[in-house]
Amino acid sequence: MKASPALILLGVTTAALAEEGMWTPDNFPAERVEESYGVTIDQQWLDRARLSTVRLTGPGGCTGSFVSSLGLILTNRHCVESCLAEHTNETRDVWNDGFYATSPGTELRCSDLQAAYLTDIREVTTLVNAATEGLEEVAANDARRQTFTRLEQECETASQTDARCEIVSLYQGGQYFLYETRRYDDVRLVFAPDVDIGKFGGDPDNFSFPRWTLDMAFLRAYQNDEPVSPDAHLTWRRDGPERDEAVFVTGHPGTTQRQLTVAEYQFLRNAVLPSWLIRNAELLGRYREFALRDPESRRMVQEDLERLENGVKFFRNQLAALLDDRLMVAKSMEEKTFREAVASQRELAAGIYAWHQVDRALAALSTFYDEYIMVERRGGFQGELMDQARALIRAATERDKPNEKRLRGYTDSQLPLVEQRVLSTSPIHMPLESLKVTFGLEKLREILGHDHPIVRKTLGNESPESMANRLIANTSLDDPAVRKKLWEGGLKAVERSKDPIIRLMRAVDGDARELLDRYRDEYQAPLREAHQSIARARFAILGTSVYPDATFTFRISYGTVSGWTESGREIDPFTRLEGVYERATGEKPYALSEAWLDARPSLDMSTPVNYVSTLDLTAGNSGSPVIDADGRIVGLAFDGNQYSIAGSFWYDIEKNRAIAVHPAIMIEALERVYKADRLLAEIELSKD
Amino acid sequence: MKASPALILLGVTTAALAEEGMWTPDNFPAERVEESYGVTIDQQWLDRARLSTVRLTGPGGCTGSFVSSLGLILTNRHCVESCLAEHTNETRDVWNDGFYATSPGTELRCSDLQAAYLTDIREVTTLVNAATEGLEEVAANDARRQTFTRLEQECETASQTDARCEIVSLYQGGQYFLYETRRYDDVRLVFAPDVDIGKFGGDPDNFSFPRWTLDMAFLRAYQNDEPVSPDAHLTWRRDGPERDEAVFVTGHPGTTQRQLTVAEYQFLRNAVLPSWLIRNAELLGRYREFALRDPESRRMVQEDLERLENGVKFFRNQLAALLDDRLMVAKSMEEKTFREAVASQRELAAGIYAWHQVDRALAALSTFYDEYIMVERRGGFQGELMDQARALIRAATERDKPNEKRLRGYTDSQLPLVEQRVLSTSPIHMPLESLKVTFGLEKLREILGHDHPIVRKTLGNESPESMANRLIANTSLDDPAVRKKLWEGGLKAVERSKDPIIRLMRAVDGDARELLDRYRDEYQAPLREAHQSIARARFAILGTSVYPDATFTFRISYGTVSGWTESGREIDPFTRLEGVYERATGEKPYALSEAWLDARPSLDMSTPVNYVSTLDLTAGNSGSPVIDADGRIVGLAFDGNQYSIAGSFWYDIEKNRAIAVHPAIMIEALERVYKADRLLAEIELSKD
Repeated sequence: MKASPALILLGVTTAALAEEGMWTPDNFPAERVEESYGVTIDQQWLDRARLSTVRLTGPGGCTGSFVSSLGLILTNRHCVESCLAEHTNETRDVWNDGFYATSPGTELRCSDLQAAYLTDIREVTTLVNAATEGLEEVAANDARRQTFTRLEQECETASQTDARCEIVSLYQGGQYFLYETRRYDDVRLVFAPDVDIGKFGGDPDNFSFPRWTLDMAFLRAYQNDEPVSPDAHLTWRRDGPERDEAVFVTGHPGTTQRQLTVAEYQFLRNAVLPSWLIRNAELLGRYREFALRDPESRRMVQEDLERLENGVKFFRNQLAALLDDRLMVAKSMEEKTFREAVASQRELAAGIYAWHQVDRALAALSTFYDEYIMVERRGGFQGELMDQARALIRAATERDKPNEKRLRGYTDSQLPLVEQRVLSTSPIHMPLESLKVTFGLEKLREILGHDHPIVRKTLGNESPESMANRLIANTSLDDPAVRKKLWEGGLKAVERSKDPIIRLMRAVDGDARELLDRYRDEYQAPLREAHQSIARARFAILGTSVYPDATFTFRISYGTVSGWTESGREIDPFTRLEGVYERATGEKPYALSEAWLDARPSLDMSTPVNYVSTLDLTAGNSGSPVIDADGRIVGLAFDGNQYSIAGSFWYDIEKNRAIAVHPAIMIEALERVYKADRLLAEIELSKD
Repeated sequence: MKASPALILLGVTTAALAEEGMWTPDNFPAERVEESYGVTIDQQWLDRARLSTVRLTGPGGCTGSFVSSLGLILTNRHCVESCLAEHTNETRDVWNDGFYATSPGTELRCSDLQAAYLTDIREVTTLVNAATEGLEEVAANDARRQTFTRLEQECETASQTDARCEIVSLYQGGQYFLYETRRYDDVRLVFAPDVDIGKFGGDPDNFSFPRWTLDMAFLRAYQNDEPVSPDAHLTWRRDGPERDEAVFVTGHPGTTQRQLTVAEYQFLRNAVLPSWLIRNAELLGRYREFALRDPESRRMVQEDLERLENGVKFFRNQLAALLDDRLMVAKSMEEKTFREAVASQRELAAGIYAWHQVDRALAALSTFYDEYIMVERRGGFQGELMDQARALIRAATERDKPNEKRLRGYTDSQLPLVEQRVLSTSPIHMPLESLKVTFGLEKLREILGHDHPIVRKTLGNESPESMANRLIANTSLDDPAVRKKLWEGGLKAVERSKDPIIRLMRAVDGDARELLDRYRDEYQAPLREAHQSIARARFAILGTSVYPDATFTFRISYGTVSGWTESGREIDPFTRLEGVYERATGEKPYALSEAWLDARPSLDMSTPVNYVSTLDLTAGNSGSPVIDADGRIVGLAFDGNQYSIAGSFWYDIEKNRAIAVHPAIMIEALERVYKADRLLAEIELSKD
């Protein structure tokens, strides 16, 4: 049943292999699943899975699933940590101690989180293509963006259920869809375990297996201060899946790049990843040293630190994958075969120009890539205050324009999210901001050079450190009330503001926008055209027997519960509770809280804790429900093994594994450690 | 006169191009120099240059030159900074303020520095090859090492002048030489300018040009408390070189890798450099954050920080060079042509096996590279105390063995250097040590994994941070008297020691030595054989019209004073004093000291400050004299431009430039800013 790696290497531009792929719900390969595993996935299963799965937006970007008729959402602890940080203060440390709302009234509002689920999908490829027909690439790119905004607006206006509408581009622009979602902006924390078990193994065990982590949490979606009633929710199968059983995962995988051209992989390998990694490894060192100052500093930086640790690990493994000649050789062979196929078919042959277009786009981007990253992408202007200032300035400017002419992040559909971010009452930690601002300005000068006009304009005669100190000492942007006033005052208020961070971001906004224009016109426009041509050729040869790259939109994967072989040794797919107590050294990240130490005698040591499967997933699937063929929860995805990271570029069925929390340990913990009776009464267990 | 890049790309395995090469004094291409520039370099010139040039050992590794009959040595400020740090304390800040010894008695002993110059060279290739004849690679590697030690010992015993003898392997083992040097262990600081002008532009301007930095200093070599009388010294030509004039540089370039196989370049690109960079960029972030704690912390970390900034910049540019397909394609073509030439000549054809041997060596190293770096190379056991403990333990163990059987770093010839290092009274800053130890242990766990036996043995149940705290709190190795006692007490004292750092390093010394053995037997032994075969084939085809890769041994390069073209713009080779005052913003690293602000009216603003030339040099050449055809000092090398970094792998005559301090600014500064009359009276100016 499993494909050999040789087949992957040689099976160039073939359809996806068994167990590979993050499928859209309208193109799920149910027949292939039935052939392989003898289980039937029907439309009802697919609809229920889709309607039960929520996308969590906010810092990170995760998945969750409805598990009760009162809007209860199961997700990972690491997906709700911005909320834990928000509610941690001198008197209450929910970050470390965890949280359980014993009554509905004590649930905690998470001001940075929103939840949404997908209610409808409509293809609009013809409309988008009609709007760009015959235009040269820059004009086509502009027309495409305006069409996106117009279609979204029309969709939202027409909706009778206050739906949010979003254009989704799949197959690198081979297809366009309108995705309608129902979104809830009021999301509250119901439960999270303590940090010791919730992040057991911490950064050392991240992307590793065997693993013993209870990375779970519950949220609840509210509307008008009442819990919502979702269209569907999932029940639980406490004993979880069998070994080799077919399982499924729904969620919002973030980004894969399995269909790039070889030139793009080389650009990632040579330019993007090394510079990101070297820059951010330094920032990681700063965060770690900052955390050592005192417990208060550690608390401030914790969340950023962990996100960055995860990012550095992820991208360094991505770089390792791209530096592995096996990958580059396979991709080159695949591309060569594909190009030959394109060139040999008369009606596709013009498509061969696409690869030259990619080369041209990359050559253009190379000439201003550092400036784009440093200025428009704020690599040189780091920190939340800079982000807030940018958002305030741009929102004020864009709101005065017709919807279609605005930057895509500031359309009517997006503005409420910007507003929520700008008005968030999450505390901003100024000592940490100071670190970030200093770091950004240092990188700005280091990477663009002391004599670059934007560096000169930004720093004048100041050093990065003293400028950062001055900005932080004199800004009042950390006050939500100040931001609210600026938001409401619009362009005039922003222009009159004497806040030094607003002034700085205004001074460079023209440069930043110019770089964004160049990015769009010189890089994105030709690249989009090229990808679209390549996608069309791919459809012509393969149809939709392939799946589109991940794009943070709803997908379903299928696979089996299965370990792998590591240096000749079989890795068992399941870990058990006894392993937690064996591994607990007493020192973080291998410590256990008193609750877990006290509960030990009452716990069944053979309870499964985590398990791996061949499910093809990636970042964004954190918090995804693992579902059985009967539509019941049999796991909670929270990570992948180290080989899953190369999954950004290809799927290696021999080694790529998803890691999930087993339902048995979740229920056991709620029952015996946390005594969360209210939750146990609310969720629906359905034992076989 | 200049070779085109196309010629470099196509001129595969040709002899060195004009202006390329770091030549040994016995093989200097004087004829080619005469042809190209019409200047004569005779044996007298070569001998004087060699005898005037000193190698400075200690932290860093630099060059200097005798500039008086009383042992006065000219070098860079950045080469004497360990000495500036050593003598900076609460009452005196010579690091920042600089230093000038107004009388001989006030010169400051630099306990970490030694100076040596090359007195004789003898080829011993035949002797070494005879000792390894017919042995298989591991046995040959052992025999070779023992022969090295024996030859060095015999040479030192035979010497009537107390010479130090060292085996030098050139052309990757194609030739072996005995280099005899005269070494002085008592080196004292005479003069260094203040930090503002001495490091003007700091890290932002490092590896950049145009540049305005007075990176100069004077030392003096002593013997029996008296200044030494060197065999030769250099005079000065105050007005420096003309544009396009032929100039020369003598010194000790550290490492170039221009003659590696393509497989080795790929290993550097894929494994060595990315992991070093990501690890050390994090350490850089920690150092920078540590420096922000308070002025005292900044002072502690300054020297390490600057060395690391330099290293990260250097290796990231090396990585960029290896990720540049132009380089890899050129090297591949060169290798292909060379291999074909080898295969086509009957008497060389067996040499083709060498490339397979390289592949085998690299494949073997890959399987334990991380462990080797973390344990034997102390990536997981960082800091000076760990270094001291390792040295004490190994010296005690090795001293009991016959000289030939010892580790190469602990032979009779090397032990005095180890002793000087162990007994150094330079202060060890414990807060900084704590950072380093924590960082090392974290990397050990991160890179080898929580479950690796050496990690388990090292950390037990402790976290890196708490273990580091315990080690630092309980060690007394920071006390030179304690180290002296351990040194003198030998193996028994070391074994009885309860110092936790000694105990830790003893506990892992077996593992470390095992990794060293594997490194030697599985990697170094086949690689040496392979390189030797390749070198022999290269000699057979090209003779010694090529130069050997840099190996920290004495070399001479030649070139011309010349700018380059940057994005269509001509870079003038000279900068002038007016540029310093224009660029001075008042904030470090673009600040000026009061002495320079006060002296401004008395200074000639057209005085040249720095200049670039096509001289082919690399790290280790810092402090090298730039000499004219008449043997006079016309500059002081201190850096290269950004393109000089790719010089590790190839020489690009279009862009690769060396940067030197101009003699005019050195003399002007001594006369008008520092009023260093004693020095001005001692050095010998010889105006045209």
